Amino acid sequence: MGNEENRLGDHFVDRLLAVIDDKGSPVCVGLDPVYERLPGEYRRGNAPEDEPLRAVEDFCDEVIRIVSPVVPAVKLQSAYFERYGADGVQAYFDMAHAARDAGLIVIGDVKRNDIGPTAGAYAAAHLAGPDAPDAVTVNGYFGADGIAPFVEVARREGKGLFVLVRTSNPSAGTVQDFAGADGRKLYEHVAALVAAIGDGEGLIGRGGYSCVGAVVGATYPEEARRLREIMPHQVFLVPGYGAQGATAADCAAAFKGDGSGAIVNASRSVLYAFADRKYAHLDWRKAVEQAARDFASDIAAAVRGR
Amino acid sequence: MGNEENRLGDHFVDRLLAVIDDKGSPVCVGLDPVYERLPGEYRRGNAPEDEPLRAVEDFCDEVIRIVSPVVPAVKLQSAYFERYGADGVQAYFDMAHAARDAGLIVIGDVKRNDIGPTAGAYAAAHLAGPDAPDAVTVNGYFGADGIAPFVEVARREGKGLFVLVRTSNPSAGTVQDFAGADGRKLYEHVAALVAAIGDGEGLIGRGGYSCVGAVVGATYPEEARRLREIMPHQVFLVPGYGAQGATAADCAAAFKGDGSGAIVNASRSVLYAFADRKYAHLDWRKAVEQAARDFASDIAAAVRGR
Repeated sequence: MGNEENRLGDHFVDRLLAVIDDKGSPVCVGLDPVYERLPGEYRRGNAPEDEPLRAVEDFCDEVIRIVSPVVPAVKLQSAYFERYGADGVQAYFDMAHAARDAGLIVIGDVKRNDIGPTAGAYAAAHLAGPDAPDAVTVNGYFGADGIAPFVEVARREGKGLFVLVRTSNPSAGTVQDFAGADGRKLYEHVAALVAAIGDGEGLIGRGGYSCVGAVVGATYPEEARRLREIMPHQVFLVPGYGAQGATAADCAAAFKGDGSGAIVNASRSVLYAFADRKYAHLDWRKAVEQAARDFASDIAAAVRGR
Repeated sequence: MGNEENRLGDHFVDRLLAVIDDKGSPVCVGLDPVYERLPGEYRRGNAPEDEPLRAVEDFCDEVIRIVSPVVPAVKLQSAYFERYGADGVQAYFDMAHAARDAGLIVIGDVKRNDIGPTAGAYAAAHLAGPDAPDAVTVNGYFGADGIAPFVEVARREGKGLFVLVRTSNPSAGTVQDFAGADGRKLYEHVAALVAAIGDGEGLIGRGGYSCVGAVVGATYPEEARRLREIMPHQVFLVPGYGAQGATAADCAAAFKGDGSGAIVNASRSVLYAFADRKYAHLDWRKAVEQAARDFASDIAAAVRGR
């Protein structure tokens, strides 16, 4: 699998940076579709049992069409598709395909992890197939040999990965803040591991970034600044903006002085913008589009203004 | 979803202990099917593109039939099904259904993890559906709020979960051995978190164990002994026996003095026993059956002999 372009050495990270440059803002819209929150037109009538997934697919297709001129990337949250079983998984890959066709970089938020051979099967499943995303998220609790198979597929297929370093949820600290003897915290230790893995042969693209990136939540900007130093070659995938409470200024901490090095994700605040008082006067499609535009310009301005 | 029996308060962990008691050994056969390693009869001819998954399903069905009189549980490794896309995911749930029909406890090895709302979608997908396994594995890097949704579904549906504490792979230590200021290691810190979560209301079964268990690799028996003290109410799911190098004596460290408290998994050493010189004189079915019997008696003897 893997197209000709990738085999010729094109790096995921260079494609990502080029599309960010083209669209003018380092942002990503997260597709976390929940049937109960879809616009009314998708929830009409007495739906037969398979209708929710159909509605979710139609909605996501429409969102992809709406946001593709505005943002460089989308992030598909696998859980919200997996909840519909095998058909939901098919929808996940169909959405990945549709988003790539729309010129978007597609990040598969799967957070897979396991021992080496099994991680290899996950990497084959989620990075190597014909409809596989451009990059996936990976949980690094297994250490280097659980991450390596994803790196190998990424190298071979011109794909990428983002290893969880610092997550954006309220109780993230109960594990990730575990402090070492030298005062370093676990997430800093994992960051150093990710930096070392990402410096491997053939992994750094023309722009100086590695195809091995890191997930660094925007809800902890002080930490993002430290992590920026530990991981100079990592693109940060930054969740937490909007519904999770982080501001554009918080997110800016994840970027380098030149405005490069991160991509900020917003899911619910864009996807369900029509339910937000700020956008309630608009048709749902216009609300999503405007929220995506506001998100993109908010982040672009904060990054420029650092 | 969730059957009447579960709603009446039956605990996953009590069902598990009852089936272990019935079968006479605390073991689990891991279904990690890799097409290239299947017996020759499944790999004949010029297979059309969808044949590997069909072969994997037929093989797993046969293995379930063979091992169900011998062992109390099977563990389905999701990665080896996901690699076949949506159809593979359907096969995963079909196999879970078949294994439960055969009287086996089914553990879904999915290692899912995410922030709270998303973890809730994963829990719904993997613990609450009609063909969902009896328990799943969960990665705890997100801390308590990433684990809680799995716990809630487990409580409501009479299901269980096993949180990764100490994994069995060679580089596990690069993250999990991260040492805290007081000398405690990360995996001990995670163990204490799991113990605290597992003591929650309604989670402890009649046998004194929680439906929140822990994954504790057999490749580190000294650590298993310490973890046994930190987590008195957790059933340990113990990978690492056989192909990964741990002996029955290593595994015994995960059990309490009364022989309860753990279930040992073997995947490749049973599944591909026909490729082992020890069983090469047998038909593949007999080889798998004998390997399962040897595994079960090896573990039972080691646990008794402590």
